[in-house]
Amino acid sequence: MAKKTRARPTTGKSHASQELKTVIADLVIANRILYAQDVVDGYGHVSARHPHDPHRFLMSRARAPGLVTVADILEFGLDGELIKPDARPVYQERFIHSEVYRARPDVHAVVHSHSPTVVPFSVTQAPLKPIRAGFLYPEVPIFDTRAAAGWTNLLISSPALGKALAQTLGENSVALLRGHGNVVVGRSVRVVVYRAVYTEANAKLLLQAKMLGGPITYLAPEEAALMEKSQSQDRPGHGSDRTWEMWKQEALKRTGKL
Amino acid sequence: MAKKTRARPTTGKSHASQELKTVIADLVIANRILYAQDVVDGYGHVSARHPHDPHRFLMSRARAPGLVTVADILEFGLDGELIKPDARPVYQERFIHSEVYRARPDVHAVVHSHSPTVVPFSVTQAPLKPIRAGFLYPEVPIFDTRAAAGWTNLLISSPALGKALAQTLGENSVALLRGHGNVVVGRSVRVVVYRAVYTEANAKLLLQAKMLGGPITYLAPEEAALMEKSQSQDRPGHGSDRTWEMWKQEALKRTGKL
Amino acid sequence: MAKKTRARPTTGKSHASQELKTVIADLVIANRILYAQDVVDGYGHVSARHPHDPHRFLMSRARAPGLVTVADILEFGLDGELIKPDARPVYQERFIHSEVYRARPDVHAVVHSHSPTVVPFSVTQAPLKPIRAGFLYPEVPIFDTRAAAGWTNLLISSPALGKALAQTLGENSVALLRGHGNVVVGRSVRVVVYRAVYTEANAKLLLQAKMLGGPITYLAPEEAALMEKSQSQDRPGHGSDRTWEMWKQEALKRTGKL
Amino acid sequence: MAKKTRARPTTGKSHASQELKTVIADLVIANRILYAQDVVDGYGHVSARHPHDPHRFLMSRARAPGLVTVADILEFGLDGELIKPDARPVYQERFIHSEVYRARPDVHAVVHSHSPTVVPFSVTQAPLKPIRAGFLYPEVPIFDTRAAAGWTNLLISSPALGKALAQTLGENSVALLRGHGNVVVGRSVRVVVYRAVYTEANAKLLLQAKMLGGPITYLAPEEAALMEKSQSQDRPGHGSDRTWEMWKQEALKRTGKL
Repeated sequence: MAKKTRARPTTGKSHASQELKTVIADLVIANRILYAQDVVDGYGHVSARHPHDPHRFLMSRARAPGLVTVADILEFGLDGELIKPDARPVYQERFIHSEVYRARPDVHAVVHSHSPTVVPFSVTQAPLKPIRAGFLYPEVPIFDTRAAAGWTNLLISSPALGKALAQTLGENSVALLRGHGNVVVGRSVRVVVYRAVYTEANAKLLLQAKMLGGPITYLAPEEAALMEKSQSQDRPGHGSDRTWEMWKQEALKRTGKL
Repeated sequence: MAKKTRARPTTGKSHASQELKTVIADLVIANRILYAQDVVDGYGHVSARHPHDPHRFLMSRARAPGLVTVADILEFGLDGELIKPDARPVYQERFIHSEVYRARPDVHAVVHSHSPTVVPFSVTQAPLKPIRAGFLYPEVPIFDTRAAAGWTNLLISSPALGKALAQTLGENSVALLRGHGNVVVGRSVRVVVYRAVYTEANAKLLLQAKMLGGPITYLAPEEAALMEKSQSQDRPGHGSDRTWEMWKQEALKRTGKL
Repeated sequence: MAKKTRARPTTGKSHASQELKTVIADLVIANRILYAQDVVDGYGHVSARHPHDPHRFLMSRARAPGLVTVADILEFGLDGELIKPDARPVYQERFIHSEVYRARPDVHAVVHSHSPTVVPFSVTQAPLKPIRAGFLYPEVPIFDTRAAAGWTNLLISSPALGKALAQTLGENSVALLRGHGNVVVGRSVRVVVYRAVYTEANAKLLLQAKMLGGPITYLAPEEAALMEKSQSQDRPGHGSDRTWEMWKQEALKRTGKL
Repeated sequence: MAKKTRARPTTGKSHASQELKTVIADLVIANRILYAQDVVDGYGHVSARHPHDPHRFLMSRARAPGLVTVADILEFGLDGELIKPDARPVYQERFIHSEVYRARPDVHAVVHSHSPTVVPFSVTQAPLKPIRAGFLYPEVPIFDTRAAAGWTNLLISSPALGKALAQTLGENSVALLRGHGNVVVGRSVRVVVYRAVYTEANAKLLLQAKMLGGPITYLAPEEAALMEKSQSQDRPGHGSDRTWEMWKQEALKRTGKL
């Protein structure tokens, strides 16, 4: 994959600042949506790469996603360090984000969740294959801390574990963490939220299809590629844009005003 | 099936205009209900044949059904074209509706959804047979874009695909789209909403019956015919009229005022 | 079972009228609770034997239970006839209630629902045995309209079908209607609501226990008898009294003020 | 296990009184959270050991947990007796709490629930092993009233049954009651709520993993020990503190102001 850094906008400071505000606003809504859609519970987190500096990312302080506000968003470097000192606790697993951003220049948003129907796929040998979610191709690898680091508390709480996880993720969009949860990546906050929600939805479909028994017709890689092609550009009224508006309304209703 | 066109009311323009308003009002509520009942999520759509012109139908612009208002309803022709130019994006899969209206003069409302428990039946060999939903007879055929058009993004985004789907649907009330969703048709907006909700409900019942194991006693075709007979006329306080009132209240509570 | 008729209170008209008001108030709340607890959807109904006349019962006009108010409650005789003429539509299946009240003097409240996890037990050979719900003993018989009357629309829409169903119910507390729903009976409105909710809950427990596999330890009949003994008297703060207060609050929140 | 009694604070009466108020406030919220998270329904209860006297505990009068307020909290001794006379009904199963507090000085909070996905594990031979919930080690024993006392109504309604249950619980954090529910213990109200919620969550994960089929990779005891180590101290922003804030907001929204 070609390394690509996103250039700082040249139209001046106020445009840049507007772009940053937009990303932060989306990130706050993303936290609320992931909670309202039952992808995260009190745990889990979502981040966005800084729109002006590819070596930084934005994420909430250690807080339940359903409660996150603009004031909670902090700036981190790719070693998982805080850019400005802050006394508030931070997520122990921020290295999931820092190392994925380091390894994948194409990724601009990351979700880590314990999405309930996805976890069972992390502890069995049933692969999480796509019925509707084309972005599950080429594959959904499973990262096991046990293989990488022996006995741990399963948290990705160091750069080394983050790096190992990013390596397992490779060029895929979703990786599972055994007995723990998953990581979903995308080119924007809205796309990663869309993917996190439909990763859970696809897991439910697959579980139910397995309960019906017999062979399952999965999405063909060729079909998935065509589906992803249309999702790969922003189209007002379509794709992740359409669901975002709906989910945002529901999320604010459930979790309260911003 | 005898071709039947619905004559324009002869009691003058204001009656006609009232009838149109009623259909549009029902159509907006239908969008909200299908969302509140978890039949559609951010995607899926519902349409109604134009009450004055069988060669036209009414449907929202490309928008999440849970957010649709009267201002979103547009008029389409049977080639899927907009009757009046409109800058707002439209559903790519409008050809599901146009081609079903063309092929089935008895149909006055169409739902396309990704109803979650129905999708698994589209990718396995377990037929979606009726336990309670008599309208699933004669059968629930499965349309596969792969058979009709090879590798696609699975969307019914052309008249040709819509026509092929309508052909698979035949004289049935429900057809599944492999790895994608389903199409439900009916003689009115209220009936098609009723059917879309109970298609999902029947899928859940059948999945659970299969989990209990052993032979399943399905509704007999003779029983289904008698059930459908009583559903085939409007009866205030009964059938789809009774649930409509309840679902409407719930839907407005969940999705907000019209 | 000894025939027992409940004597009209002797403390005068105003006490009698108060007792009637209390039963009607409970009946309205029961409608709302059964909806809010997902035991009924837009269909299903609940009735109470008239507290002053064992040959009459009280039930809503044909309306979705979640919308029922005091003004909807009508009085019926044991032939399913309206005591006072009323232009509003009535439930077609009122004969479930009339014939159960005729056959079972001990019964003072009846629920008919399509409780979703119970229906699968009506179309398979898996008996609905008690894990926690002791009142499922001696047994939960299945009534099949097909055996009783051949091809029908499955509705209990005549005294003859009601009588046949009551016969199948016998001295049990719950009977299933094949491919349709169930009937639950009790000594009061609060008890029948309690039973209807826990019939569904027990069905879910049993379905999940079957999915875990292997032999299941059911409640012993001796244990069930002891459990039912404590439920057979009103105890403020215990049994159905405790849940009623909670469910009532939830139901009014979901369905709106009375 | 070394017997440990918590000394009364020496900083005077007002500090002591503040500590008691805090525990009671948490206990009320715990009742609401357990209801809002669907761990308890109208039944079930949660208690806290008295912060000043290890021979007493605090628990609501017999009331649905979702309705409990500060005025409902009563003080009990370790024989299950009320410390001050009170006319209001009390939970029949208070001996679960009294005997666990007697047997386990390390325990400062107890939940008894009928948590829906946990019950099936109590009536089958499938052990409730940890996929994510490390506190399920060493094991989750099953207490059966039938083995302890023959035919009963299954309620733990005497000191003798409470003692037998506490013995089965041993040094574990969770025990199941056959055909009935479970008991969860912890070092604080917040921790026991966390454990009760994740006991249910782990049961769901395990049930689904079993439905996927094949061998399941459970949490290793060594991993569980490391996970529990980090949970064994209060860490603002982490562990049970993080979820508490979220669950509290949701619970008050669902069950009403305190």
